[in-house]
Amino acid sequence: MDSTRNSGEMAIGMPESRSTKAKAAATITATTKATHHPQAGWKRGVAIFDFIIRLCGIAAALAATATMGTTDQTLPFFTQFFQFQASYDDLPAFTFFVIANAIASGYLVLSLPFSIVGIVRPHVVGTRLLLLIFDTVMVALTTAAAASAAAIVYLAHNGNSNTNWLAICQQFSDFCQRISGAVVASFIAAVIFMFLVVLSAVALRRN
Amino acid sequence: MDSTRNSGEMAIGMPESRSTKAKAAATITATTKATHHPQAGWKRGVAIFDFIIRLCGIAAALAATATMGTTDQTLPFFTQFFQFQASYDDLPAFTFFVIANAIASGYLVLSLPFSIVGIVRPHVVGTRLLLLIFDTVMVALTTAAAASAAAIVYLAHNGNSNTNWLAICQQFSDFCQRISGAVVASFIAAVIFMFLVVLSAVALRRN
Repeated sequence: MDSTRNSGEMAIGMPESRSTKAKAAATITATTKATHHPQAGWKRGVAIFDFIIRLCGIAAALAATATMGTTDQTLPFFTQFFQFQASYDDLPAFTFFVIANAIASGYLVLSLPFSIVGIVRPHVVGTRLLLLIFDTVMVALTTAAAASAAAIVYLAHNGNSNTNWLAICQQFSDFCQRISGAVVASFIAAVIFMFLVVLSAVALRRN
Repeated sequence: MDSTRNSGEMAIGMPESRSTKAKAAATITATTKATHHPQAGWKRGVAIFDFIIRLCGIAAALAATATMGTTDQTLPFFTQFFQFQASYDDLPAFTFFVIANAIASGYLVLSLPFSIVGIVRPHVVGTRLLLLIFDTVMVALTTAAAASAAAIVYLAHNGNSNTNWLAICQQFSDFCQRISGAVVASFIAAVIFMFLVVLSAVALRRN
């Protein structure tokens, strides 16, 4: 009987030590799952939000590009030598504006697949960090485009008496109105990019 | 002998199952410590780097503010009615430049204690996220200031024949050179802020 108890003890002893290990491992995975599962849902929500905001950003950046790029105004009077015409490529700041906003639109379209990766796999850190870095660069790019264009638009509206630069918006009123709209759209795109950066940072917080 | 083996087995059996639990727990804490300890050191390194870069940012932003704010040039000739003088408050873009860079300098000085918190407690998430959000806003602010001033400086250097805005840098060459330097300093500050954002994001990655 002692022998059977002994063998029983032996037989149970080993599985018990294994089962405690397994149980410990099970509880660990259970707790990690318990902490991970609500996070995964929360992160997926953030990722879906990120995707939707990116679509809004594409709309804003494309609107800015298209408005600035297609606006030109020809005045109904002309002299013998040349016609009075205003378009975006008259001023380098506006050319930069069109290029920068086109780059921002293109980047946003290309970033959509990475945003979808964030929805499918909420715990992938690499793509999110990559998006954050590029989003930060795009904050700077769109803000620079919008600010430099805004400085010129302000000058076109108001002129400057100290430097003898006269306002041109009396003549080109339609042109000025449309490029002002483009500048506003670009500032909206910049704010969207800032929001995307903060959103990515919040999602990166815990993995 | 069987009995002694049995009791020995019993005596060993129970502690073994406990010791495996304890060992499992020990290995878990060991692995978590092993993964946490180098992370803490790594994060502290990032935080110290963050602090040093903030000091560089203060230098750049203060240099931009001071250069733009103190530069004025009075031409050696004058008419009966007014003297030809150029200073930053002649153009709204330059006034904005001075204000924005002053805000950036002030923010950077105020952020130093929070950066020190990051060095002392590398795992605190709140302050790091707060700094990241404000840094992102400052990227936009300094970039906007630098870009709008750059657009005006370009105009002052080159003029624009389409809008009949003449270059003023032939007359105010000293003024133009100094404000160009201020614009460069502000762009450096913007790049530093972008770097701080990415650095904070990398440090936030795992906690």
